[in-house]
Amino acid sequence: MVQQGDESFSSLRVDGARLRAGFEELAAIGGTPDGGVHRPAFSEAHLAARRWFLERAQEAGLETHVDGAGNHSALLRCGPAGAPTLLLGSHLDSVPYGGRFDGALGVLAALEVLRVVRDGGLALDAHLEAIDFTDEEGRYVGLLGSLALTGQLAAEHVDSPRAERFREALVRAGLSEAALFSAGRDPAGLAGYLELHIEQGARLVEAAVPIGIVTGIVGIRAFLVRFVGRADHAGTTPMERRLDAAQGASALALAAREMMLRRFPGGVATVGRMEFTPGAFNVVPEVVTVALEFRSEDAGRLDDMEAALLEQAGIEAQQFGLGLEVEAVERIAPAPTSGRLQEAIAGACRALGLPYLYLPSGAGHDAQAMARVCPSGMIFVPSAGGFSHSSREFTAWQDCVNGANVLLHAALALARRQGC
Amino acid sequence: MVQQGDESFSSLRVDGARLRAGFEELAAIGGTPDGGVHRPAFSEAHLAARRWFLERAQEAGLETHVDGAGNHSALLRCGPAGAPTLLLGSHLDSVPYGGRFDGALGVLAALEVLRVVRDGGLALDAHLEAIDFTDEEGRYVGLLGSLALTGQLAAEHVDSPRAERFREALVRAGLSEAALFSAGRDPAGLAGYLELHIEQGARLVEAAVPIGIVTGIVGIRAFLVRFVGRADHAGTTPMERRLDAAQGASALALAAREMMLRRFPGGVATVGRMEFTPGAFNVVPEVVTVALEFRSEDAGRLDDMEAALLEQAGIEAQQFGLGLEVEAVERIAPAPTSGRLQEAIAGACRALGLPYLYLPSGAGHDAQAMARVCPSGMIFVPSAGGFSHSSREFTAWQDCVNGANVLLHAALALARRQGC
Repeated sequence: MVQQGDESFSSLRVDGARLRAGFEELAAIGGTPDGGVHRPAFSEAHLAARRWFLERAQEAGLETHVDGAGNHSALLRCGPAGAPTLLLGSHLDSVPYGGRFDGALGVLAALEVLRVVRDGGLALDAHLEAIDFTDEEGRYVGLLGSLALTGQLAAEHVDSPRAERFREALVRAGLSEAALFSAGRDPAGLAGYLELHIEQGARLVEAAVPIGIVTGIVGIRAFLVRFVGRADHAGTTPMERRLDAAQGASALALAAREMMLRRFPGGVATVGRMEFTPGAFNVVPEVVTVALEFRSEDAGRLDDMEAALLEQAGIEAQQFGLGLEVEAVERIAPAPTSGRLQEAIAGACRALGLPYLYLPSGAGHDAQAMARVCPSGMIFVPSAGGFSHSSREFTAWQDCVNGANVLLHAALALARRQGC
Repeated sequence: MVQQGDESFSSLRVDGARLRAGFEELAAIGGTPDGGVHRPAFSEAHLAARRWFLERAQEAGLETHVDGAGNHSALLRCGPAGAPTLLLGSHLDSVPYGGRFDGALGVLAALEVLRVVRDGGLALDAHLEAIDFTDEEGRYVGLLGSLALTGQLAAEHVDSPRAERFREALVRAGLSEAALFSAGRDPAGLAGYLELHIEQGARLVEAAVPIGIVTGIVGIRAFLVRFVGRADHAGTTPMERRLDAAQGASALALAAREMMLRRFPGGVATVGRMEFTPGAFNVVPEVVTVALEFRSEDAGRLDDMEAALLEQAGIEAQQFGLGLEVEAVERIAPAPTSGRLQEAIAGACRALGLPYLYLPSGAGHDAQAMARVCPSGMIFVPSAGGFSHSSREFTAWQDCVNGANVLLHAALALARRQGC
């Protein structure tokens, strides 16, 4: 192997044509007529995509490995014996009828980085691993692969209402429930984790900037907020006498939006569903259950948002004479990315002459599980129109290549200062 | 028969003990443990209640009749040959797990009136008929019996999504679809229709007045109002960029209430249901469909309410950048009661020393079908707490007796001036 200085590395680039050819081949596995892909975790198309990935890795002369959680890896031993491994990756599963970029781009770019390093015969201070995590999208258990690898998978993740079909799917994939828990790795062996992903939002497009450096992955809190009134005859009950649960629910939905715009600019709160009981044209609704979710990359701000939103729910309930029941259904802590990895990405952008901006990730990613055990970072490339989780998902090919080159150079910088 | 003057009629009263004994017996048919009744149309309990009614009528020496729509009648030929018939009645079916007063009180009071007239051997200018209408509550076709009797039943009433089970139910009740249309009567033979019913609202209780004279039965309009936005990722889409269908729907629900209170005092508008698509915690709702219903006894006011509510829906859609689709699903015209019948009821109240007030019916009744072909009127008695369509339904017995006596004297006054 050749030990090289920064100068000689600086001219390295991914092979855009090779990357694209692989990308197109992969997009055909589970491809839909409208240009998207349908590769839910453990579907035939998903399993085929994973096999395809291992075959490409083997063709490239890389070791391959599948762990107990089904994570598929290509490994390049480019560091000294006993060196830790820098993981680069994403996922090959998709949401039902999703897009061809979400996840797939990050896995293929990681594989391409390993090829470039192998083709150059580079000797680094860490090994490199391109990893395809299992069920990132949560068909069964969201972030299953990265939770298992980082030792965060718990029995309650597996014992879901979908457990029966989950176990069948594991068997189909040659896995087992017990094996899932064997996938945990010693964090001392992990030099870090880097993920290239499409933004799934429109900030980069709007700013006309090709690279986003993710400052952190937002925390998520979700509640069922239940307004309890009284079911009354819609014809015989005057407006003044009603205890109409729809009024509290509607007021909360409007107030949540106003509150984000005014008190928490940049924050997001969503009422994605309301359920009405009894739910008839001619009955004043007795109970309306509001699905309320909000996100922030700052834990303190999440606390403030929770306090303000639930206080507002109480105010609206009181205003309309309603009872209020609040049930927490999800609490995911924010996952800040590593400052050192952000700096490595920024350095790569500068070296490549690519403008960049810092932004949080509003969506969840395997990087949030990885960030709990090792320095982690994410690189975003622009999503046209901000569309994602749909066949409308699109990223210009030059943006994909730019992202892969940033991944390459950030990885090289990190793998050369071991323990990064 | 004895021809008598107003003076001798004025001392007549219903037999409260006989009325109550029958009421208790009837309430046991399909009675529920909590004191309500479960007698959906054509259920075994409903058919048993109807048989019980005919048997009581026969015991009382009355003719009985069942028409092609299953309407059950007791007939007293107390008028001259060829005289028209004054109908008194209501219905013996209930909503699922309903109350014992709704409908049953009116049928039993009508039967009691015929008994009093028969026991007194009175000769009147019209015949009297106590009628139990079929499926008032609309298990299959709302107001089926009265629509059929008044020639208003149409093929589209019968060809509903429930048609298959409806035909089975008809067979169970010894009826047929073809026979339904044979139940129509010549309006010339109808002197009028009077119905005693519980208010199902709280106005009489609040005013502490024992008798309500119904001025009309409200018209009903119902719409599905569909706000169309865009499904977006709840984490990656800033508030400013959302086209959130929930915002338009919520704003309409709040505005509808405010509008009734301010612009249409006494009017009612109800959002009984909203349906969210896709309806997930983490997706900005693309479509929210609002079930909007409003009622008024005045057709012009209904027009004004419709224009104002749909204009408001358009304003809210525009405010939040949403599309709007409006689908009319029900239009029931208001049915004013007869001024002469209102006056006959008021005269009966005065003769009995019972205070009364005029009020509309916010709920639908067979009287609204009858009002299209003959002079019709309704007498309301107080509903404790305004409760109805539930086992909590309750009317003090003295109020029931008062109502039956008002029915008796209004009927006597009307049947003595034929052609009323």
